[in-house]
Amino acid sequence: MMDRLDKQIEFIVEIDKLKGIIRRSYLTGCDRLENSAEHSWHVSILAMILAEHSDLEINLFKVVRMLLVHDIVEIDAGDTYFFDEKGNTDKVEREKNAAKRLFDLLPPDQEKEFREAWEEYEARLTNEARFAYALDRFIPILHSYFTQGKSWKQHRVKLEKVMTLIDPIREGSEALSQYATRLFKKAVEKGYLEE
Amino acid sequence: MMDRLDKQIEFIVEIDKLKGIIRRSYLTGCDRLENSAEHSWHVSILAMILAEHSDLEINLFKVVRMLLVHDIVEIDAGDTYFFDEKGNTDKVEREKNAAKRLFDLLPPDQEKEFREAWEEYEARLTNEARFAYALDRFIPILHSYFTQGKSWKQHRVKLEKVMTLIDPIREGSEALSQYATRLFKKAVEKGYLEE
Repeated sequence: MMDRLDKQIEFIVEIDKLKGIIRRSYLTGCDRLENSAEHSWHVSILAMILAEHSDLEINLFKVVRMLLVHDIVEIDAGDTYFFDEKGNTDKVEREKNAAKRLFDLLPPDQEKEFREAWEEYEARLTNEARFAYALDRFIPILHSYFTQGKSWKQHRVKLEKVMTLIDPIREGSEALSQYATRLFKKAVEKGYLEE
Repeated sequence: MMDRLDKQIEFIVEIDKLKGIIRRSYLTGCDRLENSAEHSWHVSILAMILAEHSDLEINLFKVVRMLLVHDIVEIDAGDTYFFDEKGNTDKVEREKNAAKRLFDLLPPDQEKEFREAWEEYEARLTNEARFAYALDRFIPILHSYFTQGKSWKQHRVKLEKVMTLIDPIREGSEALSQYATRLFKKAVEKGYLEE
């Protein structure tokens, strides 16, 4: 029993490192970049609030669990920016190794549970994974728009590029893809985003 | 429909501010204090991993939802340190006002859902609330211990004081209260905590 709890605690302490993994999104609530742990919290709450906009039938708890777990691999693999073509070429390999090292800290049944949740998210074949992924693509748009396009300007991201986010969002929610499309249009009008 | 989604997005953007609410716990994974958003992620994962140690029958999703929501009121009310006697005298009032302003941003049905989750957590009458609260009391002990007692030393917290955490933890889990007691003992031996 103690041995099992010791392993669980070791994992819990190890994943504290996710708070030090920095993303490309600027916060709207304070003047700094976001880290992957606070992002994981935010996108999990998003699932609770926006579940009704899913076009797919979903088990909400499955979505939330996946979102709580989905970025843990970044502790070893780092956060890969959606628009970073080079970083995305070996992302799968890096994250697979990270999943092995990190989830292996857990007792075997929980290693399986966490790894499977992460694999399900990555494969995007189930309704829950599609909706979770849609939310994960949607939330950085809010951060960019509500910081007057700060990260878009910094990385010289253009409208054509951000429009590639729309398809994965639409796979989970037509309503959210329409909302995002409208935000892009307004962002161009306001000069937050280059056409 | 759009009006409803607009309200939801307004809430989602507003709660970004939780990432700027600083707690008294030092991170083990990087050299700074923790914020309440990343803490909410961490303690939600804790629930997933440690659910089996609950002595009470629980609906795990209810626990996770409560933990994702439980600190949002701190955006207005601030984080109140467990050992801050003065701050704890008007905590209830401050947090009640905060809950009103923040959850009122949501559509009425979701305002009710979020407020009730938060009220349930605060009242600690249900099994889920008791276990969630136990986890929220447990996790800072890990942060303190695995940073060699940094926050305990800084705030001159003594063994007698931290032992007051044991009862609320025991209300949710005997195993976790025993684990915490052992950590305190080791912390004293190692000089992380004054007797």
